[in-house]
Amino acid sequence: MTQKRIAIIGAGPSGMAALRAFESAEKAGAEVPEIVCYEKQGDWGGQWNYSWRTGIDQYGEPVHSSMYRNLWSNGPKEALEFAEYTFDEHFGRPISSYPPREVLWDYIDGRVRQSEAKSKVRFATAVRWVQFHEDTETFTVTVEDLRSKQTTAATFDHVIVATGHFSFPNVPDVPGIETFPGTLHHAHDFRGAEKLADKRVLLIGASYSAEDIGVQAYKMGARSVTMSYRSRPQGYDWPEGMEELPGIQEIQGQTVHFSNGEVREFDAIVLCTGYLHKYPFLPTELALESPNNIYPDHLYRGVIWQKNPRLSYLGAQDQWFTFNMFDAQAWYVRDLILGRAELPSERERAEHMQSWRNRFMALETDADDVQFQADYIQDLIEATDYPMFDLDEVVKTFLDWKKDKKANILTYRDKQHRSVMTGTMAAKHHTRWLHELDDSLERYLGAPKEDEMRSRFEADDADEDIERLPLQERIQR
Amino acid sequence: MTQKRIAIIGAGPSGMAALRAFESAEKAGAEVPEIVCYEKQGDWGGQWNYSWRTGIDQYGEPVHSSMYRNLWSNGPKEALEFAEYTFDEHFGRPISSYPPREVLWDYIDGRVRQSEAKSKVRFATAVRWVQFHEDTETFTVTVEDLRSKQTTAATFDHVIVATGHFSFPNVPDVPGIETFPGTLHHAHDFRGAEKLADKRVLLIGASYSAEDIGVQAYKMGARSVTMSYRSRPQGYDWPEGMEELPGIQEIQGQTVHFSNGEVREFDAIVLCTGYLHKYPFLPTELALESPNNIYPDHLYRGVIWQKNPRLSYLGAQDQWFTFNMFDAQAWYVRDLILGRAELPSERERAEHMQSWRNRFMALETDADDVQFQADYIQDLIEATDYPMFDLDEVVKTFLDWKKDKKANILTYRDKQHRSVMTGTMAAKHHTRWLHELDDSLERYLGAPKEDEMRSRFEADDADEDIERLPLQERIQR
Repeated sequence: MTQKRIAIIGAGPSGMAALRAFESAEKAGAEVPEIVCYEKQGDWGGQWNYSWRTGIDQYGEPVHSSMYRNLWSNGPKEALEFAEYTFDEHFGRPISSYPPREVLWDYIDGRVRQSEAKSKVRFATAVRWVQFHEDTETFTVTVEDLRSKQTTAATFDHVIVATGHFSFPNVPDVPGIETFPGTLHHAHDFRGAEKLADKRVLLIGASYSAEDIGVQAYKMGARSVTMSYRSRPQGYDWPEGMEELPGIQEIQGQTVHFSNGEVREFDAIVLCTGYLHKYPFLPTELALESPNNIYPDHLYRGVIWQKNPRLSYLGAQDQWFTFNMFDAQAWYVRDLILGRAELPSERERAEHMQSWRNRFMALETDADDVQFQADYIQDLIEATDYPMFDLDEVVKTFLDWKKDKKANILTYRDKQHRSVMTGTMAAKHHTRWLHELDDSLERYLGAPKEDEMRSRFEADDADEDIERLPLQERIQR
Repeated sequence: MTQKRIAIIGAGPSGMAALRAFESAEKAGAEVPEIVCYEKQGDWGGQWNYSWRTGIDQYGEPVHSSMYRNLWSNGPKEALEFAEYTFDEHFGRPISSYPPREVLWDYIDGRVRQSEAKSKVRFATAVRWVQFHEDTETFTVTVEDLRSKQTTAATFDHVIVATGHFSFPNVPDVPGIETFPGTLHHAHDFRGAEKLADKRVLLIGASYSAEDIGVQAYKMGARSVTMSYRSRPQGYDWPEGMEELPGIQEIQGQTVHFSNGEVREFDAIVLCTGYLHKYPFLPTELALESPNNIYPDHLYRGVIWQKNPRLSYLGAQDQWFTFNMFDAQAWYVRDLILGRAELPSERERAEHMQSWRNRFMALETDADDVQFQADYIQDLIEATDYPMFDLDEVVKTFLDWKKDKKANILTYRDKQHRSVMTGTMAAKHHTRWLHELDDSLERYLGAPKEDEMRSRFEADDADEDIERLPLQERIQR
């Protein structure tokens, strides 16, 4: 019998989890299939592989990453920690709970940096078309090497789609938006808030992008930040200079009319309107079509394409949990492919899906959501040899995080959480997030100068109103 | 015998020329093949179909058009006029030589607006993959209806690629560009210069994009405009506030170091670095790979793919001539498909190509280039029933245009040229280009208010120094 062949599409956190899952089995003595991972970018890390480019990349391909220069984790790192490669193992000492992107990239890279995994990735290679052949039950995957411009086709027994769903911006039309003369783009093309200094900024949207680009803009000295919501406001206790308004009725040049009758002028608009599930390389019968939610339909156990179980998706859900959820998914898909786990019948899968979908449809609060996703992950891990961890404790971490944000959206990143993997309490970081204008790994891991420490932490948490001063005054303190 | 089937990919000016070519034969009584034209956008017109969107469109597809709000033709309309549908026929009266984009879109739309052509176009449909079958000598074209997300495949005898090559930006890396905190994008994503008012603007590049975005930025009140050239400066007599500098050594934040030692600070950078030939839907053996020049290799008579003459390209050349050249190409490809013209043997084609390539390689001046392209078009028209026109006279129009630009880059659009198709002299426009801030069709075709006329044309050409005043003063005059 010839060796099975597996294609992994994408080498972001999900694709890397799949590579690691197979590697882990191989190291434990199992015989694993031949794996080829196709990655459009020049390095792995997906979203975490920052690029200054926007729109179209150097090869004429849509830029994948929506990452911006000064992004810091907006959830506690303790909630995304790998169960089998901890932050302690990687950094050798406690770090803070909300590291910047370069630090997180270093962590996910670190787990597989020394392994054979990277040799299985064809970088700068775009998947053009995937076709399934009923007769042979195989896929033809046609790819283009973007450097040589050569297209080639190869045959695989399984395809794992790990391209993510935060790369193709959802860009709705807004009445009159074509008349707006200022800076205008989607959050996907946002690379840093420096240029928003002294600008009147409108963010259209009320989810994570609006929240974080909003506080970034505030941090970098925007003259004002207005966030427009469709269904409900985010409801944080915004500092002076930030506000929420309802939907937009019309844009006329620089002037924006809101549905409650308010009128404002703006210099810049960022569309924080979410992302599309988009798989331009898949025919309709293989392509997931779903809004961004935590239990997309047609995926058994959130990963197996019901109509064709030789196809699976990693990370296709909306995400409270991230890296460790991708691990659980990857381990499970691996075990199915290796024959360690058994694929239930189509009918059993349908019933299982329906019961989880029913539960999903009944979810009401964010707390329900988090618990649901925790239970989902537990269910997956129980079917594999991935190290189980205290998911209920992570749910509590999420709820603490939400409380911290509610208390102060500008300081929640200065809080510490405890790892459920190691019991380690996060370090208090040397500089408050709002004061830190350098997000490099070097600066993050380095020791701050003493006078910085003094001036920045003297007031400490008791005097958080410092955060509410204008940029220049904040920096001078 | 079953009817032949033709796929046209793209309904921009080239694809529309192909539709018109077949329609013209059909109206004259010929039996024509079944034609399906796939167009990614929601309407035809290609580049001329302006969209406020940048980067990725509402369907998650790369935005096609590089058009900006205030683009006015940068060459005389008399050089691009259709020989079989004149400006006089469309507008019913003389108009100026340099109309804005909406006026030009109206002209190309007008030729086919009333015809059956539009019913052959599948709008909002992206071509995903094209495959040629040696045995049947047919193509399978797989497309996605972007609205329904349905993918389908169809068989064709010929494929005409008319997707253009000014849609996928060429975005080189520049040392340190990732540290630049200001507005940064490629000309492809430029939509209007209003937001450059009062900004120090750097344009990287020295071709049409840099030239025109440069004068747009000047017109809209940029504080300064610096253009960086690699090989040679554009060399126009720039007004105060515009300058040319050589290549960039390094960017450090807002500070840019040029190779001659000059240092400047900027608030905005636009990469005017050209476009890629990019056909992500074609396998290597069918995909043209070429720099942007006026005689790409491997295309017999500039249109027929030498390795597989069932595939052709329209408008794949760099362009002095545009709309009427696309017509000549489309008429010739049509006549080959209809069997009215005979395809020479592979060897004859190779020899023909080589002789033109040799001549192309020997071209030295812009005037040589224009004459070469005129001769190329003449050669095509002679093989078809497209109305011949005085190409040598159009060459003279191009040379006059170049002289006008050299004399004053800010006023060349106020000059008039004569149509070689109708003998009509262009109208003097009611408002000077530099004064006109409204580029709508309505405003362009409407009569100006009397006092505007007086204040704007009193000084007339004798006093062109008015153009060199700052924006506010210019507008007040």
